[in-house]
Amino acid sequence: MTGIAIENPVLTPEALLEHWQGHRRLTRRTIDAFPEDKLFQFSLGGMRTFGEMACEFLGMPLPIVHGMTTDTWAKFEFTKPTTKAEVLAEWDAQTRQLNEEFPAIQPARFSETMTAFGQWQMTGTQLVQYAIENEVHHRGQGYVYLRSLGIEPPHFWERD
Amino acid sequence: MTGIAIENPVLTPEALLEHWQGHRRLTRRTIDAFPEDKLFQFSLGGMRTFGEMACEFLGMPLPIVHGMTTDTWAKFEFTKPTTKAEVLAEWDAQTRQLNEEFPAIQPARFSETMTAFGQWQMTGTQLVQYAIENEVHHRGQGYVYLRSLGIEPPHFWERD
Repeated sequence: MTGIAIENPVLTPEALLEHWQGHRRLTRRTIDAFPEDKLFQFSLGGMRTFGEMACEFLGMPLPIVHGMTTDTWAKFEFTKPTTKAEVLAEWDAQTRQLNEEFPAIQPARFSETMTAFGQWQMTGTQLVQYAIENEVHHRGQGYVYLRSLGIEPPHFWERD
Repeated sequence: MTGIAIENPVLTPEALLEHWQGHRRLTRRTIDAFPEDKLFQFSLGGMRTFGEMACEFLGMPLPIVHGMTTDTWAKFEFTKPTTKAEVLAEWDAQTRQLNEEFPAIQPARFSETMTAFGQWQMTGTQLVQYAIENEVHHRGQGYVYLRSLGIEPPHFWERD
């Protein structure tokens, strides 16, 4: 019965992708709101800079989609950006790749339990939720950094 | 065809409730990590205190579940807590009520678009996601407050 269409699913793969990309658009605006000289230098409470957090975000989406599709959890390699322009260029490249590669995930994988990155045991949906919520969590911290710098962050509810 | 069972849904109502409660357990630990005299007094960047944010969180779950079940979006009234003990007592009461009332939501409501609180147009699933992610967003800010106070926040990934 795998993959049978129902009239009222709680969530579809397409809606999950769009939700993810909506959050990624907001995160992109948050990165862009930082002055160049603060992105990799400013922090509070001994925490990481928002630039370092953004590099963490960049390490997740494509390995997750690749792992969900192939069940191969190779270490993902990417050139670690060190400037705002490099972060945003990598961000935009991944946005396109995510849209291209996500539809290849087999529907059954969303409810299957897997050991992601060789260590996190969860279903495919939980894994995508984790990536989204990890980004929301740290982006909220970026908002405190921006406010402390006297900069108005983008509206949380705007995802276009 | 509404409500037909499928073998591999992306998300079930039960999994969404458990995910929500997992986040609420983490938020409860975050509230509890604040010293009594800081919860409603400390903030950074001109932002709200974490106690005020927690009161916002407390205003969402039960009206959402009530609105999803009945399509009535009455203003939710509750005694606004002003101490940590009151916040946690209200939190625990809502945890129980949420578990009791969530199963009454008709399955079709998760994919139906509604105008929640008379202003937010989204599906039932998106509405629950919004409540969860709003909490994740502000809880991340609470982590910066705790770190700035020299207090180690609870682990983000622990939801038990």
